[in-house]
Amino acid sequence: MSLTIWCNTKFNPAATKLLEEGTRAHRLVVSTMTSASVLVAGQTDPALLEAQVAFGQPDADDCLRHRGLKWVEVSSAGYTRYDRDDLREEFRGRGTALTNASGVFADPCAQHVLAQMLALGRQLPQSLRDQFTDRGWHYAERRYDSRLLTGQTVLLLGFGAIGRRLAELLAPFGVTLIAVRRQTRSERSVRIIPEEAVSSALAQADHIVNILPENDATRNYVNARRLACAKPGARFYNVGRGVTVDQGALLDALQSGRLGAAYLDVTDPEPLPPDHPLWTAPNCFITPHTGGGRHDQDEALVRHFLANLAAFEQGGELADRVV
Amino acid sequence: MSLTIWCNTKFNPAATKLLEEGTRAHRLVVSTMTSASVLVAGQTDPALLEAQVAFGQPDADDCLRHRGLKWVEVSSAGYTRYDRDDLREEFRGRGTALTNASGVFADPCAQHVLAQMLALGRQLPQSLRDQFTDRGWHYAERRYDSRLLTGQTVLLLGFGAIGRRLAELLAPFGVTLIAVRRQTRSERSVRIIPEEAVSSALAQADHIVNILPENDATRNYVNARRLACAKPGARFYNVGRGVTVDQGALLDALQSGRLGAAYLDVTDPEPLPPDHPLWTAPNCFITPHTGGGRHDQDEALVRHFLANLAAFEQGGELADRVV
Repeated sequence: MSLTIWCNTKFNPAATKLLEEGTRAHRLVVSTMTSASVLVAGQTDPALLEAQVAFGQPDADDCLRHRGLKWVEVSSAGYTRYDRDDLREEFRGRGTALTNASGVFADPCAQHVLAQMLALGRQLPQSLRDQFTDRGWHYAERRYDSRLLTGQTVLLLGFGAIGRRLAELLAPFGVTLIAVRRQTRSERSVRIIPEEAVSSALAQADHIVNILPENDATRNYVNARRLACAKPGARFYNVGRGVTVDQGALLDALQSGRLGAAYLDVTDPEPLPPDHPLWTAPNCFITPHTGGGRHDQDEALVRHFLANLAAFEQGGELADRVV
Repeated sequence: MSLTIWCNTKFNPAATKLLEEGTRAHRLVVSTMTSASVLVAGQTDPALLEAQVAFGQPDADDCLRHRGLKWVEVSSAGYTRYDRDDLREEFRGRGTALTNASGVFADPCAQHVLAQMLALGRQLPQSLRDQFTDRGWHYAERRYDSRLLTGQTVLLLGFGAIGRRLAELLAPFGVTLIAVRRQTRSERSVRIIPEEAVSSALAQADHIVNILPENDATRNYVNARRLACAKPGARFYNVGRGVTVDQGALLDALQSGRLGAAYLDVTDPEPLPPDHPLWTAPNCFITPHTGGGRHDQDEALVRHFLANLAAFEQGGELADRVV
């Protein structure tokens, strides 16, 4: 079965070579409109009409219209642009598969959150600020402000591939792990709770980790009402999407001390403008959407696609299938 | 058996109360010369002569002379001041026990190193520098510089309580863990190698973690010759003692790029003077000896001592016994 595979992600030379070699049995069509960023929406491209397989960030309307398409692999973990009722129904109706690359980004995202949690616990931002300014040696103060993760309670807002990997990384710390998720089927080592129970979980959590994707149900999920339920001094992290947080309410919670600290990897908008108050809010630290970053991203994305291509050729099960 | 217990560590009120209550069956003598820092050597104190048990940082010569002393618990993990041939021989001869508080500091130290490892992997110092200066949003650059710990090789210089806890915390990352130690008995999940094999281990390690204590054999252990064996771009961490590193050689290795980065928790001297070149060496980040810090340190030290006191009363085995 020779397929036409369309791709509009611009990979580095090594990953491009890997993709070309791995698709040699097929016809690879590289779009003339490629982007190196997996966050940018692809443009409509008539070349897609020839393809049975699309890899990258194809235009969602193109995917909807082009009935010959059998499988779309999105080269990102987020798939908001494709998370539409019409597209889901159309794909299901004609048996078109939609996969994402969450397997590529789950491990770096989970390591990123753990880095942020431990950095706050060990007062790394405060000591780095000293290093970058007056090089003061605040031994006693920093030591007594340092905290252990051991035995703490961690609440995950959203639970998928990132949360599952984070649960593995947190296991040696002996934390109590609670997660809010729509499907409340049970998970090993994590207590899954329904949405109705989130207020009481917020009151118990030392760490609130927001991993929510962006959709109609999650926009402004972390709002003033929910933040008012948080345990005083709790630490808040966001590696989901910026729009799932009411940032005004977050600022209030940091200024009042209701939240002890925040470490954000995503904001609204991105880039966050230099004069935005979150940059200077008390104990608020920010990384520029680098949570999923890995220096081998391109190769990892291509390897993920090629493994799925092998499964697709054999009619097997696709990894990270979302539709 | 009522004991006289001498103590010269100044604890906070809650921990003091805990100590008083826990030693009620005995006589507690608080030295008139106490210190809140467990890094400062205690002064000679005639009151020690009444005691069978000393807790804190007693003067080493006092301990040597006072033959009635049955057990000394040092309120720190390091015990360089007591690591003397004459004291070891004298204690062994008369059956006096020496314990340290490594059980209190191992977990925070291990979490501190992991925080430093993940911070370098996730480019946290670089993003914090951006936040503290021009608030630039270096999305692409930071993402492609981000690295995973997964599957990397970690070499521990020294292996005791901290290394053992770090091995537990690193287990979910699937790293290859190698440790250099004098006693080469095997350990679960860690390959212990003898000193002679360190050059080849240095050549393999992506991360070199120095946990060496200070003694005659470890001073300047990390020198130019050993750093020249390091894998190009390796990351170096020090949570042991500053004097175990030839800091001039470390600076050279950072400036030449032989080492990709360093995260130091200990330096020589401490505090590190503001004009010291390590503060501004390329990719060199520093915490002010906060590795063992925990906000509940005083209570944890007292709990550690009281658990050992119960064992001592019953003739049981003392935790963290070093002589």
